[in-house]
Amino acid sequence: MALVGGVGGAKLAHGLAQILAPEQLTIIVNTADDFDLYGLRICPDSDTIMYTLAGLVDKSNGWGIGGDTTHMLGALRRYGQDTWFRLGDQDMATHVLRTSWLRAGCTQTQVTARLAAALGVRPQILPMSDEPVATLIDTVEYGELAFQHYFVRYRWQPTVKGLRYVGAEQARLTPQVTAALAKADVILIAPSNPWLSVAPILAVPGMRAALVARPIPRVAVTPIIAGQAVKGPAAKLMVELGYLPSAAAVAAYYGDLINGFVYDKRDSGLSFPALRAVALDTWMQSEGDRVILAREILTWIEGF
Amino acid sequence: MALVGGVGGAKLAHGLAQILAPEQLTIIVNTADDFDLYGLRICPDSDTIMYTLAGLVDKSNGWGIGGDTTHMLGALRRYGQDTWFRLGDQDMATHVLRTSWLRAGCTQTQVTARLAAALGVRPQILPMSDEPVATLIDTVEYGELAFQHYFVRYRWQPTVKGLRYVGAEQARLTPQVTAALAKADVILIAPSNPWLSVAPILAVPGMRAALVARPIPRVAVTPIIAGQAVKGPAAKLMVELGYLPSAAAVAAYYGDLINGFVYDKRDSGLSFPALRAVALDTWMQSEGDRVILAREILTWIEGF
Repeated sequence: MALVGGVGGAKLAHGLAQILAPEQLTIIVNTADDFDLYGLRICPDSDTIMYTLAGLVDKSNGWGIGGDTTHMLGALRRYGQDTWFRLGDQDMATHVLRTSWLRAGCTQTQVTARLAAALGVRPQILPMSDEPVATLIDTVEYGELAFQHYFVRYRWQPTVKGLRYVGAEQARLTPQVTAALAKADVILIAPSNPWLSVAPILAVPGMRAALVARPIPRVAVTPIIAGQAVKGPAAKLMVELGYLPSAAAVAAYYGDLINGFVYDKRDSGLSFPALRAVALDTWMQSEGDRVILAREILTWIEGF
Repeated sequence: MALVGGVGGAKLAHGLAQILAPEQLTIIVNTADDFDLYGLRICPDSDTIMYTLAGLVDKSNGWGIGGDTTHMLGALRRYGQDTWFRLGDQDMATHVLRTSWLRAGCTQTQVTARLAAALGVRPQILPMSDEPVATLIDTVEYGELAFQHYFVRYRWQPTVKGLRYVGAEQARLTPQVTAALAKADVILIAPSNPWLSVAPILAVPGMRAALVARPIPRVAVTPIIAGQAVKGPAAKLMVELGYLPSAAAVAAYYGDLINGFVYDKRDSGLSFPALRAVALDTWMQSEGDRVILAREILTWIEGF
């Protein structure tokens, strides 16, 4: 089982999917950056995972559909709309179907399964919850921003003062997540942003306790290499929240959630006293790197 | 004021729009072929008028946006959807905005005005009503079909036994339509299908009476030329409903609604005893033909 958020998490999930049988891999995905736009329900992390596993993803962005066009977006601009969020034309089919199925009464878990199955994705992708949760980012410059406004509209440039996950207290573990947690023999926290992608998953009441209760390898993979994020605001955010931007601070942040940690071989000076830890090349530059990293992690965990 | 439905009506409206000042032209549009698809509200007649007046229409089809692509539709097929109704990518912006504004509480009249204004369309386009009305077609082959299933999915090939306009009894005249009816100095019924495009407008309670009550020229333009429809099922439908497919039968069908009739010069043998009638070239093959026909009709009406 893997807990994943954005692009980095999707890459590792893609590596795992190429090694494990589909029934061996369950992916719990962050839904707290989901939002509504033009009445459509948009689930960026879920879609990134799904498109990546389906082989449809835009390889240069790491999100969206490869070769997608934006003619609808152009037409929205003709209507005077401020089109700050990119919605590809092919991508629109996902949003339109999801929204219509949700309105018809399907749960997000059901909708995600149906979309993924239609695209031939066989590992289970599970939303962290079927209730809506929304990450809000308190910024110095603009006050509190909805996640996609912070992340996409302002390109994560505002200075972050704090975060909250609205709706998390009312969210519940789904039967599917509960079952997957119970049968997992490894828990892997992908190299996703701990605060923006993983923390919302952990904020679902009962999630963290259910994970910690499992006497199995619970391993996080660092999203920070030599003080930098591979992609996105992880390092910048850590500084703004008062952390040193390092793999060690990430491991400390996860605390007793994890009993193992994969850091990057470029950080060979670090030590993780209370954890089993291994230094690997965690920087997935090529598609092949994903499989190599996934295999090295699983091999290392076998020797736990 | 013009009452219009599909492509033929849009062409004449386009001709009128090039002659009249915007405030002189109000278009009342059929909404009974509106429907929901993937949770989106689609209003084909309204969009055809709007795209035509905006100069955006696909000139070969007479509907949709010129040069539009169908990448979303292709992606819907990848999800296993039966994509029998063409939704262009640019066209999608219209459906998405309309649906979101309707859900936010706008009336269809307000939404139509807002979309049209954004595209620079200045004549007023008024939905016949803000309440949903749906044309159902009773067919020999398939029983009762929703309009777009009859018209698009089965390409109007099924044999029609009867029609009804569901919801019409609950529909109300909007304040905007009522005001437009009161101030009109000419009422023109465009060469749209009398049963599929005009009759639903007339089925809104109070509409027909309000039209007949106006002591002004009320002129229909024939959609039938030499026993044939220029486009679409008008002639076929007339035969199936037991009429002779002729301009005379159309004029008779409108009855006291009209006091004037424009038939085609190719039908010079016809006579319309109870009406002022004129034979013109009503077959709008070129864009220029629209303006010529509109001007000839208005000139003839001036001498009423």
